[in-house]
Amino acid sequence: MQAPLFLSEHAVATENFCKQYIGTKQTHIPKRLYDAMLYSLLAGGKRVRPALVLACYQACGGEDLEAALPAAASIECMHTYSLIHDDLPCMDDDDLRRGKPTCHKQFDEETAVLAADALQALSFEMLADLNADADTRITLVKDMALASGCQGMVGGQMMDIEAENQAIADVLQVERIHLHKTGELLRWSCEAGARLADADETQFQACSRFGKAVGLLFQIADDILDTTASSEMLGKSAGKDEAQNKATYVSVLGVTKARELADEMCEIALDACGSLQGTAGKQLKDLAVYILKRGQ
Amino acid sequence: MQAPLFLSEHAVATENFCKQYIGTKQTHIPKRLYDAMLYSLLAGGKRVRPALVLACYQACGGEDLEAALPAAASIECMHTYSLIHDDLPCMDDDDLRRGKPTCHKQFDEETAVLAADALQALSFEMLADLNADADTRITLVKDMALASGCQGMVGGQMMDIEAENQAIADVLQVERIHLHKTGELLRWSCEAGARLADADETQFQACSRFGKAVGLLFQIADDILDTTASSEMLGKSAGKDEAQNKATYVSVLGVTKARELADEMCEIALDACGSLQGTAGKQLKDLAVYILKRGQ
Repeated sequence: MQAPLFLSEHAVATENFCKQYIGTKQTHIPKRLYDAMLYSLLAGGKRVRPALVLACYQACGGEDLEAALPAAASIECMHTYSLIHDDLPCMDDDDLRRGKPTCHKQFDEETAVLAADALQALSFEMLADLNADADTRITLVKDMALASGCQGMVGGQMMDIEAENQAIADVLQVERIHLHKTGELLRWSCEAGARLADADETQFQACSRFGKAVGLLFQIADDILDTTASSEMLGKSAGKDEAQNKATYVSVLGVTKARELADEMCEIALDACGSLQGTAGKQLKDLAVYILKRGQ
Repeated sequence: MQAPLFLSEHAVATENFCKQYIGTKQTHIPKRLYDAMLYSLLAGGKRVRPALVLACYQACGGEDLEAALPAAASIECMHTYSLIHDDLPCMDDDDLRRGKPTCHKQFDEETAVLAADALQALSFEMLADLNADADTRITLVKDMALASGCQGMVGGQMMDIEAENQAIADVLQVERIHLHKTGELLRWSCEAGARLADADETQFQACSRFGKAVGLLFQIADDILDTTASSEMLGKSAGKDEAQNKATYVSVLGVTKARELADEMCEIALDACGSLQGTAGKQLKDLAVYILKRGQ
């Protein structure tokens, strides 16, 4: 299935913003670090998280897309740092990411550790720099810290590691891992877009519910893809979940039931964004369906 | 030389705050991650950075020390994360830190990477949680991101790695590395204390100048200690700088000239805090002299 057009438009806008933002710092950053940060940040990827920020911003009536771009870039920096550390030899030990050598392969391990650390800090810097009132910015910072830290993404990665090779894993445990590991930041993306558009409570809750459902949908589709797609299609090593004995939706449910669950999550997501406005509300629906179809 | 009493008082207050703050999250964090974060955070150390926050806060007339504690804890989380990553096998490969096994030795590498990542996020969370107006909090977040990221600490670490084994290093290059690697966060500590106390411009500039001078003083003393003290005294491997061909004040100046430079920096620091108030102003002076004497 073709990706919706707005996904690539939002991706280009986010990448351009990142290049420009980091570019203004170039003379203040050691060259190797600068190169490694940009290498990983601009190594492709679907940019689902920035697209969620921007589409939710528009779906809640936000009109100045430029104003939401730093938040879109911020979540992509946070996501990219997590991928770099995830790929390290002591973690998943991956050589390929988005079809290119991983950061520690292209540079070296110490540069990869540092580039990722710097991208995490940069993510918070971008939020602090948003053209929004201080209360909104500090809320986004706090939510980002929670969603990305020990109670969120990093906590989920630890759970994921601990679940490897455990004999018993059930679907609730898998859901718990993924709500933390990927779900919280996908929800953050939707809520951030709503906050920056000064959404009313109904709109905010719609985005939040949409984000939560899409977060799970995204992960189920990813788990299905890992078993059904080739490494070439994925741009990263396929079949790794099984090789590493990861607890996935497919390992606990099988492919057929995982697909049914994906359908259900997509319904919830579509229902959640039913009340959102015009073109951008339609974009959110297209995005949910696109994510669903990737796993089919 | 005995450490000034207030240093240990501020250390205890900061550690208690950290324990309590992270403790409230305990049930939401995987046990291994929680243990590793607290292990490294509470593994001792002089807690110079939190003491600078609290002493500058008081020196600028701040009266409610509790209100500044989250900022003191925040800088210690940021510092601890950097130590954990610094000690990794792919970085400095250290087995001992503050007299105890390093995080990756006590747990394992992947847990160490994640615990540090979570501490960075926690550092920003604590700032967002401060009991201060949103403008002050967002300024502290922005300054922290700059001081800790690619233009600050992480940038300095990259410069430090690149300078290893380089034939030519001069004192300006060493200063440039350390202003980034340690100086920016020490200055942040002093400025944060001033900001939280609603310092006037004169007080703020005094704290900022003091922080910059103390940052360099601290590093010169550290470089001297690395060549003159035993591993037992340091609680970490001594003589590592020379073994790794690090660019240090001692390697470019020799011990005698490095000590003279430390004296000069101490004078600048004492001069900077000359205008600050009463007991706390005196604390800053005692701290500068204590740091100087450590390196003698």
